[in-house]
Amino acid sequence: MAASSFSSSSCCCSHISRNCLASIFLTNTQQQQQQRVGAFRQALIGTPLRLSRCAEGRLRSRSMAASPVASVAKVLTQDDLKKLAADKAVEYVQSGMVLGLGTGSTAAFVVSKIGELLKEGKLKDIVGVPTSKRTAEQAAAVGIPLSVLDDHPKIDLAIDGADEVDPELNLVKGRGGALLREKMVEAASAKFVVVVDETKLVDGLGGSGLAMPVEVVQFCWKYNLERLKNLPEVAGCEARLRLEGDKPYVTDNSNYIVDLYFKTPIKDARAAANAIASLEGVVDHGLFLDMATAVIIAGTEGVTIKAK
Amino acid sequence: MAASSFSSSSCCCSHISRNCLASIFLTNTQQQQQQRVGAFRQALIGTPLRLSRCAEGRLRSRSMAASPVASVAKVLTQDDLKKLAADKAVEYVQSGMVLGLGTGSTAAFVVSKIGELLKEGKLKDIVGVPTSKRTAEQAAAVGIPLSVLDDHPKIDLAIDGADEVDPELNLVKGRGGALLREKMVEAASAKFVVVVDETKLVDGLGGSGLAMPVEVVQFCWKYNLERLKNLPEVAGCEARLRLEGDKPYVTDNSNYIVDLYFKTPIKDARAAANAIASLEGVVDHGLFLDMATAVIIAGTEGVTIKAK
Repeated sequence: MAASSFSSSSCCCSHISRNCLASIFLTNTQQQQQQRVGAFRQALIGTPLRLSRCAEGRLRSRSMAASPVASVAKVLTQDDLKKLAADKAVEYVQSGMVLGLGTGSTAAFVVSKIGELLKEGKLKDIVGVPTSKRTAEQAAAVGIPLSVLDDHPKIDLAIDGADEVDPELNLVKGRGGALLREKMVEAASAKFVVVVDETKLVDGLGGSGLAMPVEVVQFCWKYNLERLKNLPEVAGCEARLRLEGDKPYVTDNSNYIVDLYFKTPIKDARAAANAIASLEGVVDHGLFLDMATAVIIAGTEGVTIKAK
Repeated sequence: MAASSFSSSSCCCSHISRNCLASIFLTNTQQQQQQRVGAFRQALIGTPLRLSRCAEGRLRSRSMAASPVASVAKVLTQDDLKKLAADKAVEYVQSGMVLGLGTGSTAAFVVSKIGELLKEGKLKDIVGVPTSKRTAEQAAAVGIPLSVLDDHPKIDLAIDGADEVDPELNLVKGRGGALLREKMVEAASAKFVVVVDETKLVDGLGGSGLAMPVEVVQFCWKYNLERLKNLPEVAGCEARLRLEGDKPYVTDNSNYIVDLYFKTPIKDARAAANAIASLEGVVDHGLFLDMATAVIIAGTEGVTIKAK
């Protein structure tokens, strides 16, 4: 079923770099995470995938007629996979670009890499538009000149992570709490490249069972939590106020976050997005539909690019 | 044209109190404001209108065969008109009700009157759900027990003022800055009665030429101001950040307000509402469509109720 949904997608799946230096076969010890990947990932890794670079020398080079996956050379962590995808995404960056800088662990690798390339002189005249206060701090620390949408309302390219990616490249984002600023910046971008490790692939949004965040004003948040939970479009979800310690988590915009948890994927993500957005007091939500132009996926079998 | 739009409305216009004690004929010195009232008001005041009470004794009683408008007995101020409408609205309130309490100068008269009736023992077991911090303060001061949507998610009746009322009872609200909380409370109300003086009547929303507020997050407000101004659905409007002194006005939800000013009424208010709401960073807007169940209008010719 997932394979058919994948093949019926308007997206195309391509191997990266025909002149790849290495093909990568790995064992990922995070088996529990991998179980979430489901059939969408299976569809992806059913074809041989190759890396365009040796991932900072930590990956062992092998011939294409290598032994099967079981013969493991090196175990890559989830962070290794995120860095692989991040490095690939940065290949899209050209000197002179205005860049949307995402938030989260994968996006942090992107920011770091751009900083390196600026220092090495391989990139110049970059302007970064950060999607959170912490990204702004990191970008400033690695030497990326910063701006805001007020001064740069048109962005050439945004690169950011995601919490879930479905076969149509729709996303759940914002578990890091920066969903609104991410959506503002990425909606203003001509191209939006998403970088994930393969554990983020789902057959339908909400399918990971992890949080889908909704940013709400603090005023009467319990009322809005109840209304969210009772929307027919998200029937059966659990809704919980996000906490930081024993206090509500507060976003960069002084709002709260209600996290929705689904037992099964959302049936109609567009209908759910519209219903959630129509509630007074909802500021934004983590469903990013029809926004990604490409998704770079780092997996145990290599790096894949899926583009619209 | 306005008269025809009025007659084609699904609303009905009724005189109040067949056993009225007085009919009121007034001169309003605020001619400039009256010029804004336009054809919608003309349609209303084309029929004789009567008051159900003597407005605290300040209005002169007259026979029905009174002399024409030119022979003025007393000049009513805009505040007098607001109080007339507010007193009429409070007649809808019954003991035991959960009430949504609006914000603004007219709503303040409503809160004050409810407080009086509670003190006199003519009302009891009222719970008020205020729409702003200042309404909460006023309601507490006059002895109205208060609650919030979290604890009382279903409201029997909300009473509030409005900045504009069109022939279909659609509204512009929120010039007082409380648009989001007003919309949350009033959307939760079984009945929503609007109280205005006749200067608030327009043939089309935006037609007063005064502000239509949009609440936006502080982050990149200039960017959103530009985007609002450039929406085709509000073509030709001016957009200005609301100030308080020389600093941005900050709402109860820590957001800013961008006020839109129209030279001509909005052509399609529903389309405009949807387009505005779809912008990331817009928290809510002052277009209250299909929400009012009745509008009480105090005018120089008396008080009128228009209901759906």
